[in-house]
Amino acid sequence: MKYELYYWPEIQGRGEYVRLALEEAGAAYVDVARGPRGTAAMMKMMDAHEGTPPFAPRLVIGQTANILLYLGARHALAPKTEAGKLWVHQLQLTIADLVLEVHDTHHPLGPSLYYEDARPAAKKRTAEFWSERVPKYLGYFEQLLAGNGGTYVTGRRLTYVDLSLFQIVAGLRYAFPRRMKAFEADIPGLVGLHDRVAARPNIKAYLASERRIAFNEQGIFRRYKELDI
Amino acid sequence: MKYELYYWPEIQGRGEYVRLALEEAGAAYVDVARGPRGTAAMMKMMDAHEGTPPFAPRLVIGQTANILLYLGARHALAPKTEAGKLWVHQLQLTIADLVLEVHDTHHPLGPSLYYEDARPAAKKRTAEFWSERVPKYLGYFEQLLAGNGGTYVTGRRLTYVDLSLFQIVAGLRYAFPRRMKAFEADIPGLVGLHDRVAARPNIKAYLASERRIAFNEQGIFRRYKELDI
Repeated sequence: MKYELYYWPEIQGRGEYVRLALEEAGAAYVDVARGPRGTAAMMKMMDAHEGTPPFAPRLVIGQTANILLYLGARHALAPKTEAGKLWVHQLQLTIADLVLEVHDTHHPLGPSLYYEDARPAAKKRTAEFWSERVPKYLGYFEQLLAGNGGTYVTGRRLTYVDLSLFQIVAGLRYAFPRRMKAFEADIPGLVGLHDRVAARPNIKAYLASERRIAFNEQGIFRRYKELDI
Repeated sequence: MKYELYYWPEIQGRGEYVRLALEEAGAAYVDVARGPRGTAAMMKMMDAHEGTPPFAPRLVIGQTANILLYLGARHALAPKTEAGKLWVHQLQLTIADLVLEVHDTHHPLGPSLYYEDARPAAKKRTAEFWSERVPKYLGYFEQLLAGNGGTYVTGRRLTYVDLSLFQIVAGLRYAFPRRMKAFEADIPGLVGLHDRVAARPNIKAYLASERRIAFNEQGIFRRYKELDI
């Protein structure tokens, strides 16, 4: 069976956490919206599933962390026990909170406004994000990683949480190169984790392929010079 | 077995979605931090579980939607099929996104600032929230409810999503009485759902008890007159 991923075709966005899991697992999938007439196909899909999704013959799953909960169990990207599954899902939900906060650095007054109309607020929000939130979130994962041996967050086996943390480090480096450069000394474990994930054969091949969309200023991680002081 | 809930004792907050599920289920639980020396007990628990939680003999679960995923399966507050479980979890994650946006109306520049220091931005964010976000989120659930028969969101059986939507309606009424009064004409189904949940015997008893913390200005839903125009 081939998975179908429906996500905006021009950004990594929240879809990227799913793409990384599919790529690491070597799962067969189609990134539907990136194909011919893909956006139309995605819109059609969204319209068709505004109500309760049809459970058969196709299983339709929304929300990034929920999709990873499902894929993790099927592709050995999560522990096998119920307790372990809930635990990595909890970590993923914490990452989802962080991703929303990253988005709010450039959209503090709501997602429908243009960045240019929220710039002063964006500067304040970004300052708070780097002084309070990044140390809190990444400090938590750094400590967890160290406490579990330093290889992957839950121990010696990779989970989808490690893939997502790779994306967080890569994204912060893209969006805030100067701030991140200064901050990386505080998270040597996560930097190592990033490199370890990037070197995995399937991920390495993916990152070098055209399937990996480049970071850009329509996504979650955006590089605005005035926010990176 | 008695559940132990660890959450801030003086606010409804994100803990309330869990309390409502436990109450509806008639589950035995202790709201630990509200008991004698409760905050100290909560802090001790948090310190003890900064790393990987011990899976035995106790199962420790964090993140509201994750807790509901677990409780829903055990107390018939979610469908029994895997597809159904994933579907209501997806809806709960969408509610979690909405709850974060509610919080951002009064904390648009980051959670660590005082409301008073972010007031102008809060006014802008709140205006966007009511013009764009509330119609989008609640319109979605209103349509879903109507499409599934109008009783509960997924059909004739109550799920934890219905309990959470009750809390959303109650919270918006508390925080933004004027705006909500005008908006309720657009969501007659959800208003009916709110009343249906409030009238369920276990929920009715809970709401009338001292176990239900009153809304206040330390929680997610805060009443600030200048935001409710």
